[in-house]
Amino acid sequence: MMILSSTDILAMEQRYRATFMNSISGFKSLQMVGTISPSGQTNIALFNSIFHIGANPPLIGMICRPDGDQHSTFDNIEKTGFYTLNNVQQNWYKQAHQTSARYGLNQSEFETCGFNEQYLPDFKAPFVQQASVKLGLELREINVIKFNGSRIIIGEVKHIILDNGLVATDGFVDLEKAQSVTVAGLDSYHSTQKLARLKYAKPENQVEELIVN
Amino acid sequence: MMILSSTDILAMEQRYRATFMNSISGFKSLQMVGTISPSGQTNIALFNSIFHIGANPPLIGMICRPDGDQHSTFDNIEKTGFYTLNNVQQNWYKQAHQTSARYGLNQSEFETCGFNEQYLPDFKAPFVQQASVKLGLELREINVIKFNGSRIIIGEVKHIILDNGLVATDGFVDLEKAQSVTVAGLDSYHSTQKLARLKYAKPENQVEELIVN
Repeated sequence: MMILSSTDILAMEQRYRATFMNSISGFKSLQMVGTISPSGQTNIALFNSIFHIGANPPLIGMICRPDGDQHSTFDNIEKTGFYTLNNVQQNWYKQAHQTSARYGLNQSEFETCGFNEQYLPDFKAPFVQQASVKLGLELREINVIKFNGSRIIIGEVKHIILDNGLVATDGFVDLEKAQSVTVAGLDSYHSTQKLARLKYAKPENQVEELIVN
Repeated sequence: MMILSSTDILAMEQRYRATFMNSISGFKSLQMVGTISPSGQTNIALFNSIFHIGANPPLIGMICRPDGDQHSTFDNIEKTGFYTLNNVQQNWYKQAHQTSARYGLNQSEFETCGFNEQYLPDFKAPFVQQASVKLGLELREINVIKFNGSRIIIGEVKHIILDNGLVATDGFVDLEKAQSVTVAGLDSYHSTQKLARLKYAKPENQVEELIVN
């Protein structure tokens, strides 16, 4: 067993600490964020800090660092008010990883990395055509974390484009069927193997498997 | 292909929509949150909206609904300022799921669900002894989402207890070796299968696998 204190963490070499802290909190939701600038330049950025906030209204949050690669995405979302989230699939996760390279401001990751733009009427931001689960969001709130200056972008889901056959009769979206991958840390990609769905837990009952088609 | 609008989402039956929206945003980080009340009553709650915020200082966020099951956890964190995050493992994920049942205020999920409390000197909150990756956090900030009243709890990692052999030479924590599961929606548990770690992407390079021991 290893026991580390705050002092040990802060004494780590910077890149070692980034890799360590990014991987220690568990497997994460991975999405390609699609945006467009007011002048029409499209962009894809990989985000791994996506979280469910509520179902009614349907809200999703994500963390945007104050500096670095995510700047264009933040700028586009703030200026246009719209963005998309697109799942990353097992058969092209390497291509998705490539969108995290620092391309020039006038280069679109759609073109350089081989993804197609897809649009819905009356919705500005580009979807990634190849993805099997696509969400179109409208910006609702930007929350600043005082302690380190990161921003929490909160959006409401306004449009969904889903491949057929992914939704169970109780509304469950089968991410394994959708070929979605999960990520650990900044660079470790994983497919998944379902163990089980479990019934709503009650104090007086044993845990039971939930089977829904 | 299915295309859904905001109107379609809002017209869904309430439980269907909760299941749908909770699962659509991707696989999630799952943690058992350990807390203790000022009078000494311990508590475990399952959280699946955990996200990395930054490595220096090491900050982790999580969403807490304004109502419902997570009330005791929120209350304990607000009053004591300390909590723990403990990974859920493949060989006892059903036991972890059982902690989400609504036990009485004077029943501890540690005892009722068969988990052992573990403590570090000078740190109030209980760790789950069985977990292989355990984080002790100090509350730094509570951020309210105006749009739906949810709270974002932000804590700084002050202590880490890790099983041996989980950390690679570059700081990467191997969650697969740690037997951590990921969750989709509210109740679907999954183990993972590593595809690859990938090198830092650069515009002029092809994607390459990263091998670190």
